Amino acid sequence: MSGRLIVIGLGPGEATYLTAQALEALERADWFYGYGPYVDRVVAVDDPRRVVSDNREEGARAREALTLAERGECVAMLSGGDPGVFAMASAVCEQIERGPQTWRELILEVVPGVSAMLAAAAACGAPLGHDFAAISLSDNLKPWALIERRLLACAGAGLVMAFYNPISKARPWQLGVALEKLRDVLSPDTLVIFARAAGRVDEQITTTTLDQARAEQADMATLVIIGSEETRRVERPGQSSLIYTPRFAPGCDPEAAGSQG
Amino acid sequence: MSGRLIVIGLGPGEATYLTAQALEALERADWFYGYGPYVDRVVAVDDPRRVVSDNREEGARAREALTLAERGECVAMLSGGDPGVFAMASAVCEQIERGPQTWRELILEVVPGVSAMLAAAAACGAPLGHDFAAISLSDNLKPWALIERRLLACAGAGLVMAFYNPISKARPWQLGVALEKLRDVLSPDTLVIFARAAGRVDEQITTTTLDQARAEQADMATLVIIGSEETRRVERPGQSSLIYTPRFAPGCDPEAAGSQG
Repeated sequence: MSGRLIVIGLGPGEATYLTAQALEALERADWFYGYGPYVDRVVAVDDPRRVVSDNREEGARAREALTLAERGECVAMLSGGDPGVFAMASAVCEQIERGPQTWRELILEVVPGVSAMLAAAAACGAPLGHDFAAISLSDNLKPWALIERRLLACAGAGLVMAFYNPISKARPWQLGVALEKLRDVLSPDTLVIFARAAGRVDEQITTTTLDQARAEQADMATLVIIGSEETRRVERPGQSSLIYTPRFAPGCDPEAAGSQG
Repeated sequence: MSGRLIVIGLGPGEATYLTAQALEALERADWFYGYGPYVDRVVAVDDPRRVVSDNREEGARAREALTLAERGECVAMLSGGDPGVFAMASAVCEQIERGPQTWRELILEVVPGVSAMLAAAAACGAPLGHDFAAISLSDNLKPWALIERRLLACAGAGLVMAFYNPISKARPWQLGVALEKLRDVLSPDTLVIFARAAGRVDEQITTTTLDQARAEQADMATLVIIGSEETRRVERPGQSSLIYTPRFAPGCDPEAAGSQG
């Protein structure tokens, strides 16, 4: 029997976000690798098939899992959100490329999931309803200058932006600098969403404007969305505001022009 | 009882991509609005609660559904993939903003789903593993010049791009022109993925390079991914190649620098 590694997206938090495909993959697995809090979601703490590691050890975790799969086991690599968006799927591919030829013979499955930005967007309306970019603000693996260049390019082209890894104890200043740079090129009333724990029971959505936004409103569990000049807020009596980005550019009336066919 | 509209993401195709949350929402609904092929996935063709419409009628469909919800019904608006990504959630928000005040009093739920780009990426590895943009190539609702500007901005900043609505009978030339423009700024060996029917039983993934890519390789059901200069292909004996974008920029060795904490 040939070995298999299944990289499984668990979605943003609660079990209700799991797909049937993810549940089926979890049932097939002999071992469960991952960052502790993700493994905790789906495997009992006393289950001997758990192999948890810290969230800074993706490379080593992937190598261990591949080594075990090579012995013919079916190994699950658990990822929050979608495993292909700033998560374990890329780390696994990196190790397959760098590792022994036998790792290329393993069967690799990637099971997609609901990424944090999709849960965050759903919680407040449709801020990602038109062209957008997903950008990690972590400068652990890329120079800060490159991040700034990307932010300014996307803002200048009118894209909404979703920031992953906006802030952490080890990276305290990056989000503040990013907001400062964006203030140079975007209107002060550009909408900014801080979606903390999106898709979890303790979800907390805060909407503000670029001139009011402060980096301290985010933590490691926050997904930040920066609207474009087109992103709009609809006030609702007795309910939170809806935030959405129209499907159409200014001057392109959808009722006259038809929709995206 | 107050009315409710639930915009539900059905994921990219097969029922295995449905989340438990989406299934639960489908059970609560009294009515099912949507583009026919999406409604067909989850509601029997002879079910009297179906209200199907063409895929160019989002505005009218949203108004009808909101009108029905206003009468106290629980109305489901079905969307392929994720409803917040080039889909119905934004169309519903638009109509709420433009419509009568009573529509703002309705309860609106958006149930996220696995978007087509996530399924496409999962099928070939992790091409969206680092910063990327999602861009619609449809110029029905925005000027083509704006689309070109966004393509060049993202390519210039080193973002991977996922193209939604790359081509249709009514928009036959846009993808070809986009590829042509990108050839001016990206290396000829930039990887290009045509993911047709990603997440469906008839899924077909074709990987090529920018100099070889032709618009005719895509149709309405295709999600196109344009790699960055960092996107890599790993050949595997007897299996399709893995395509992935590393988590790190050139010169930022993840094993030395640690991961995105």
